[in-house]
Amino acid sequence: MQRHRMPEILGACALAALTACAALNRTADDDLMRQARALFKPLPADFGDAQHPLAPERVALGRMLFFDTRISFDGTTSCAKCHQPFLYGTDGLSKAIGVKDRTGRRNAPTVLNTALQVSQHWNGDRADVEDQAMKALLGPASYGNPEYAAAMAKIGAIPGYRATFEKVFAGEKNPVTPENWARAIGAYVRTLASPGHFDEYLGGDARALTAREQDGLRKFIVAGCAACHSGVGLGGAMYQKFGVFEEYPKATGSKTLDRGRIEVTNDPADLYIFKVPPLRNVAKTPPYFHDGSVESLPEAVRIMARIQLGKTLPDGDVDDIVAFLGSLTGTLPRDFITLPELPAAPFR
Amino acid sequence: MQRHRMPEILGACALAALTACAALNRTADDDLMRQARALFKPLPADFGDAQHPLAPERVALGRMLFFDTRISFDGTTSCAKCHQPFLYGTDGLSKAIGVKDRTGRRNAPTVLNTALQVSQHWNGDRADVEDQAMKALLGPASYGNPEYAAAMAKIGAIPGYRATFEKVFAGEKNPVTPENWARAIGAYVRTLASPGHFDEYLGGDARALTAREQDGLRKFIVAGCAACHSGVGLGGAMYQKFGVFEEYPKATGSKTLDRGRIEVTNDPADLYIFKVPPLRNVAKTPPYFHDGSVESLPEAVRIMARIQLGKTLPDGDVDDIVAFLGSLTGTLPRDFITLPELPAAPFR
Repeated sequence: MQRHRMPEILGACALAALTACAALNRTADDDLMRQARALFKPLPADFGDAQHPLAPERVALGRMLFFDTRISFDGTTSCAKCHQPFLYGTDGLSKAIGVKDRTGRRNAPTVLNTALQVSQHWNGDRADVEDQAMKALLGPASYGNPEYAAAMAKIGAIPGYRATFEKVFAGEKNPVTPENWARAIGAYVRTLASPGHFDEYLGGDARALTAREQDGLRKFIVAGCAACHSGVGLGGAMYQKFGVFEEYPKATGSKTLDRGRIEVTNDPADLYIFKVPPLRNVAKTPPYFHDGSVESLPEAVRIMARIQLGKTLPDGDVDDIVAFLGSLTGTLPRDFITLPELPAAPFR
Repeated sequence: MQRHRMPEILGACALAALTACAALNRTADDDLMRQARALFKPLPADFGDAQHPLAPERVALGRMLFFDTRISFDGTTSCAKCHQPFLYGTDGLSKAIGVKDRTGRRNAPTVLNTALQVSQHWNGDRADVEDQAMKALLGPASYGNPEYAAAMAKIGAIPGYRATFEKVFAGEKNPVTPENWARAIGAYVRTLASPGHFDEYLGGDARALTAREQDGLRKFIVAGCAACHSGVGLGGAMYQKFGVFEEYPKATGSKTLDRGRIEVTNDPADLYIFKVPPLRNVAKTPPYFHDGSVESLPEAVRIMARIQLGKTLPDGDVDDIVAFLGSLTGTLPRDFITLPELPAAPFR
């Protein structure tokens, strides 16, 4: 806004004014970028590390398993059921639905960039993506297997999988284990980074964000959103109480009361505490909140400002922040939006 | 077998014998190919016709809809759920499972080359792929929508779909109709042809089939399989009683008795009558029969010979026929094994 008004205010000295204005804006823009670079970090190429190596064959195995429905209890559910590529790693539902039409307790978070978080799931009850992948095999509302052995038997019965496990986990006597399933899927999920315009911006290219997106970024910071939604993921690094200034169900219309992380820690201080969700790709992953109770992104922004920060944001600020959030939409990884060839059913 | 024994029988006149043998074989091979070309036809490039135009934009729309779960009653089910690309257009289950964990009555047939058939579904209760696509919107064990209007509202709420329907069906006042859904998905499904080695063979290249596959082809014809499994699809052109020489459940172990086409026609002559399934990609699409009651392809061949033709095939013949059936596996279409970009959820 300032940028456009400036020449008018300075009146006749058009050229001088424009020059001054450009300089002022450059300073303001530089300040914003400096602030942004202090608060946020660009995405790495992947989320592998020494403990989580991303050898191509391991990743390729994980990718096959990720898309394969045959390992679930009834043969209907894969990771990709709730983490669909072109729904940006989500399912578009309020709450995930797994085998046997069982509805999960919470909204399926995107699998994109998920490995950067301090833990997995809304209440952090999974240590990392490997832990999540392993326990999902038994989750009643995910894969629904009665026990790990049943799931491993399904994998072991498919010759192509058995051979690939033996190759990827060479030297192990029986490599078809839940731990190796977790290692393989974890390796694949750790490749699912979705960099976008915001990363270019953080890399130093101010033109990567529109003027409006930059206004939104500024307001996002000023309003206090970045207090929690910071770092590489713009979230995913800490736990916070949902509903600081108001009880959340009054704002979200949530029908059931989720007690949050207290279920994991049994610590009364963790009542209504949830992991701060990363905001990358948020514009592409409605509905919002741990229970998918809100479909509208502007409405979600309004509610967050009110119940977390005690602020009523003007509509213009909400719109600008939503524009900024749109700049967090990244490029879908090629090995996510293309399907892996699956090994054939056992020949009987 | 004959080919390999011949020189031995002819003894010392090795060269002459080999020459004679090659000539004999050439004749035998020519005969086999001539017979095959009379009985079967290569796949066309697609299954479009004047009534079913395959304009690229229409096909592209159908492809998006085919893979989109959001049009089903609970947002969990797309065509691709039961017709998965790398399971060769099937789901690997005995019977399909749609919304609300409802199990369909029959095995999901492959969507590959399905449009070439005289009708759709095991009992032919769908006239063509368009009819199938439309009624699947309401099928309790497929998309499960209570009525067409509910499904159309889901499509119409996604701006990208609304715009594309308006473009593809230009001139229509409200183009988001079940009929146009069916036209679009039908157009896409009519592109799903999977030509393979057998088509090269029928095109005149005898080397496209191995000697064993050719032996199997010969035995397939001699045994009488081709009486019903003929034409472009090696099936899909007629209805036949399942269980001519024996009641089928005794052979297949089927737990429920499916009365077949009589349910469609109410004609007592149609008791236990089913559409002859096409055999293309059969080696990749277990389990077998209308109820997925048999997992083993050799076992399925053995049962068919016994209960349809009154023959007990020697193991060697079964194996050769199974080898031939393997040659019916085709190349998966590129626009089937790659996912379409889906239009974004409505921005609310």
